[in-house]
Amino acid sequence: MDVGFIGLGQMGQAIARNLLKAGHHVTAYNRTREKAEALVADGAKVAGSPAEAWRNPVVFTMLAEDAAVEAVTFGDGAGLSTLGQGAVHISMSTISVDLSDRLAEAHQKARQVYVAAPVFGRPEAAAAAKLFIVAGGEQSAVAHCQPLFDAIGQRTFVVGEKPSSANLVKLSGNFLLASMIECLGEAFALVRKGGIDPHAYLEIVTGTLFSAPAYKTYGALIANEHYEPAGFRMALGLKDIRLALTAADALAVPMPAASLVHDHFLAGVAQGAGDSDWSGLARLSAKNAGL
Amino acid sequence: MDVGFIGLGQMGQAIARNLLKAGHHVTAYNRTREKAEALVADGAKVAGSPAEAWRNPVVFTMLAEDAAVEAVTFGDGAGLSTLGQGAVHISMSTISVDLSDRLAEAHQKARQVYVAAPVFGRPEAAAAAKLFIVAGGEQSAVAHCQPLFDAIGQRTFVVGEKPSSANLVKLSGNFLLASMIECLGEAFALVRKGGIDPHAYLEIVTGTLFSAPAYKTYGALIANEHYEPAGFRMALGLKDIRLALTAADALAVPMPAASLVHDHFLAGVAQGAGDSDWSGLARLSAKNAGL
Amino acid sequence: MDVGFIGLGQMGQAIARNLLKAGHHVTAYNRTREKAEALVADGAKVAGSPAEAWRNPVVFTMLAEDAAVEAVTFGDGAGLSTLGQGAVHISMSTISVDLSDRLAEAHQKARQVYVAAPVFGRPEAAAAAKLFIVAGGEQSAVAHCQPLFDAIGQRTFVVGEKPSSANLVKLSGNFLLASMIECLGEAFALVRKGGIDPHAYLEIVTGTLFSAPAYKTYGALIANEHYEPAGFRMALGLKDIRLALTAADALAVPMPAASLVHDHFLAGVAQGAGDSDWSGLARLSAKNAGL
Amino acid sequence: MDVGFIGLGQMGQAIARNLLKAGHHVTAYNRTREKAEALVADGAKVAGSPAEAWRNPVVFTMLAEDAAVEAVTFGDGAGLSTLGQGAVHISMSTISVDLSDRLAEAHQKARQVYVAAPVFGRPEAAAAAKLFIVAGGEQSAVAHCQPLFDAIGQRTFVVGEKPSSANLVKLSGNFLLASMIECLGEAFALVRKGGIDPHAYLEIVTGTLFSAPAYKTYGALIANEHYEPAGFRMALGLKDIRLALTAADALAVPMPAASLVHDHFLAGVAQGAGDSDWSGLARLSAKNAGL
Repeated sequence: MDVGFIGLGQMGQAIARNLLKAGHHVTAYNRTREKAEALVADGAKVAGSPAEAWRNPVVFTMLAEDAAVEAVTFGDGAGLSTLGQGAVHISMSTISVDLSDRLAEAHQKARQVYVAAPVFGRPEAAAAAKLFIVAGGEQSAVAHCQPLFDAIGQRTFVVGEKPSSANLVKLSGNFLLASMIECLGEAFALVRKGGIDPHAYLEIVTGTLFSAPAYKTYGALIANEHYEPAGFRMALGLKDIRLALTAADALAVPMPAASLVHDHFLAGVAQGAGDSDWSGLARLSAKNAGL
Repeated sequence: MDVGFIGLGQMGQAIARNLLKAGHHVTAYNRTREKAEALVADGAKVAGSPAEAWRNPVVFTMLAEDAAVEAVTFGDGAGLSTLGQGAVHISMSTISVDLSDRLAEAHQKARQVYVAAPVFGRPEAAAAAKLFIVAGGEQSAVAHCQPLFDAIGQRTFVVGEKPSSANLVKLSGNFLLASMIECLGEAFALVRKGGIDPHAYLEIVTGTLFSAPAYKTYGALIANEHYEPAGFRMALGLKDIRLALTAADALAVPMPAASLVHDHFLAGVAQGAGDSDWSGLARLSAKNAGL
Repeated sequence: MDVGFIGLGQMGQAIARNLLKAGHHVTAYNRTREKAEALVADGAKVAGSPAEAWRNPVVFTMLAEDAAVEAVTFGDGAGLSTLGQGAVHISMSTISVDLSDRLAEAHQKARQVYVAAPVFGRPEAAAAAKLFIVAGGEQSAVAHCQPLFDAIGQRTFVVGEKPSSANLVKLSGNFLLASMIECLGEAFALVRKGGIDPHAYLEIVTGTLFSAPAYKTYGALIANEHYEPAGFRMALGLKDIRLALTAADALAVPMPAASLVHDHFLAGVAQGAGDSDWSGLARLSAKNAGL
Repeated sequence: MDVGFIGLGQMGQAIARNLLKAGHHVTAYNRTREKAEALVADGAKVAGSPAEAWRNPVVFTMLAEDAAVEAVTFGDGAGLSTLGQGAVHISMSTISVDLSDRLAEAHQKARQVYVAAPVFGRPEAAAAAKLFIVAGGEQSAVAHCQPLFDAIGQRTFVVGEKPSSANLVKLSGNFLLASMIECLGEAFALVRKGGIDPHAYLEIVTGTLFSAPAYKTYGALIANEHYEPAGFRMALGLKDIRLALTAADALAVPMPAASLVHDHFLAGVAQGAGDSDWSGLARLSAKNAGL
């Protein structure tokens, strides 16, 4: 397929490269042009403007935050005015439920197709085409995108016809990860202050109750107090929890654990740890305990 | 070995039965005599009093709470005055760090040996000899008990020479489970109010981020809103979180997520759900969201 | 002075009436025209459109929320395009810090003057010209408005030249009130479950530690469990706490007590109590305790 | 009356001195004898042992914590075995509801009379005989003590026949104070980071919503960041919140605001601020905000 791709950060590059490997033709745009050019060797065409990317039957956006997605979609020469009728916008960014709803409405008015398809997986998983895709949108539209999803991920979960459902699931998933980190941080502070070796403790936790890779990955970062460089920045963790809380507020769902995690991330960022890994929450718990 | 076993609830019976299967001689005591008698067919001898059980070189206690362990250990005709010099008390109950410290001191004064060995695993795991044992105590003492642990569990983690370290680890583990339930409950309330099918959501959560059995088990209970009968009663969950918070308070470790979970369990118990499964926390989150 | 007044709810009417009493000429606009007409007997002129009100040298807005203030200020025929150069917009509504900043910027560009002047006081205080005014804006502008403030309030606090400072103070004040209600609610649940008469308890609290009228007013509502009709609706309490948290988030100030209060208000609203008085938080605490 | 007085810290000395001024005969005991001798000039007799103090028809205890009250009441040569039949123990210490219940039961068995009479007021109020006394106990017993209460306080509130009711009220009052401090601390962090002068802010808060002396006193400490020397130590604040939470747990009353305050006090103590004033909670909120 001919595919436009806007946003070639660490995740976007890996995904676009897998699309190319699978034989798709990718026109790539990135604000910092070098990141798009990095894909030329793999066969990508570099777009000089977002509009060039939008002139494809399917266009992915993979950007850092709402504002960036809004800018490339709603602005002058942007998606809504450029994407063809019946063409598809696949939004992979972790954005707000509210923005996803506004995108759905705007694309529908413009007779374009909108699919929300946020992903779970760290950059290594993206590179290995092992992402999990959570897709929301009209059944036929999602089916149309399936070959693309197959090129980049190991499994696609379709959550429903309302695109923003996929964003809600993604935000809830990041909440589950963030709260797991918070709780691990508290538990490690407790046992460390009780004189127990953190690595021994980690082995018990992951060897008995919690064999999931997320526990192993983050537990190791915490046991080693290894928070820099960041795999996923605390400032982004804060952003995602904020989006989860905003969605929860709109749906009238109290989420006290999410509030707690939000306030800890905020304390971390206020104290200068915004660029540390989000597992650095555990350092806050340790400091609060006087460690 | 000749083994005394005090406390034959669901867990105790399964453990004692596996000791018998492995060829050990078990003298079993339970306040309600019928529960001890249930083991006669497996070869156990029924004790008419705790003292009879305590007159063995190794004695297990597996009781519901601090008060019960105190009663059989410190009272008249109880453990401290009956257990032989050099004999071993293996305390498997989930008790407070403080009580475990007092037991360690008292047994040492009485020239007896004390090993704290709480376990992770539900009754099914106990029946299948698949428990995880977390052991704390003098190295030689723990080594002496190892054949017994091998008969009842799949793995033993030795956390240190201070017996109560094992209790601290056990309490922290139950905190991790309880907080996982809290967070799952909030996430399910969010997505359900957002119109997403809870079973589809469960499949995503356990198929992507959290493959650990604990997520599958508790996620299914929550997706099915299946809180009765209890696998582990909310009142016991509250008790364990209380013990974790007491230990944290003594070590000066703030654990806000544990406080939050405590307050939710307390609300559940106050509203009459103390006998529901502790995953019923999710029902509270749903109710708070107006579901 | 010639004064425009937009927004004649309970508070707005009382304030406008006091301006009339003090000899000012008021042109009043309200979406529901009857509320403006109620002031004709007091000497007000009724405006048929917001623009008519905006054609005055000083214009008050007293509206329920950001959206309403935005609509009358930024829309077609609205404040920015109608208010004269050098004329003053006094915004009394409890709005977001962000909107107040945008109003300041927009009015400055349009060579108009903007003063933020939210108030503390319930409708009775407004009627008695006993409000407290918290004013933010250029010194000369605030001085120019002082005679108007004197007509409606007992005291004006000037917080600085940045208008939104006044909004921040107002939001922080509503947070202090809301959190006081939360804490009183928890304390009453505790003593009631301990068998203590709530009225006797109220007398102790207000007779010893907390003589402030706010404690007496809200303590009496809680002791009497008298939450309907609302003096100030829980849904508005939720809105204000949300604005406080948004401001705190933007300034990177963790406010866990505000988060807690937010989540309780949200639970109240989700369960259908949005139209009850915000002191109905105490009913939630009582329910959580099984009362 | 002939009065024994055990515990002559800052509060005890001031109270005992007022009893002497009112013409009562006071036999004073303190572990550090000097503190008792300080009252000799005022007419007190110094007791060489607690038992000497207990040999009076009315005996006050005013001690720092449960353990101290237990030691002088239950130990050898202590209150229970020394106080005469029909004689009265007035317990003014801030102790747990549980200990107060045990004291009530033990004194009743010993045919002695027990009145719980904790007080509100700082040392200055004690010196000025301006304390508020919250009394619990049999009506006739409290009436019998009234002349003593009149000598030391400005008002007595009788909460019921169950002595521990008075302790519950006292603990709930300290919770209200501590949570007020927490909320003020968060509000000050917010406005300070928003560029508002903290003293101007204090004037607004106490000039509008919260005229109560407690707001003035603690607000000034926070605005001045004046946390040493302590008027009331954070470690004692932590102790009292712990007792409140223990009482709440026993009555099954969730108190999330109390949990939050507990965790903050604990963080303060863990980080070495246990000897600062409890209003130092605000310093933690400021630090969390990166101030």
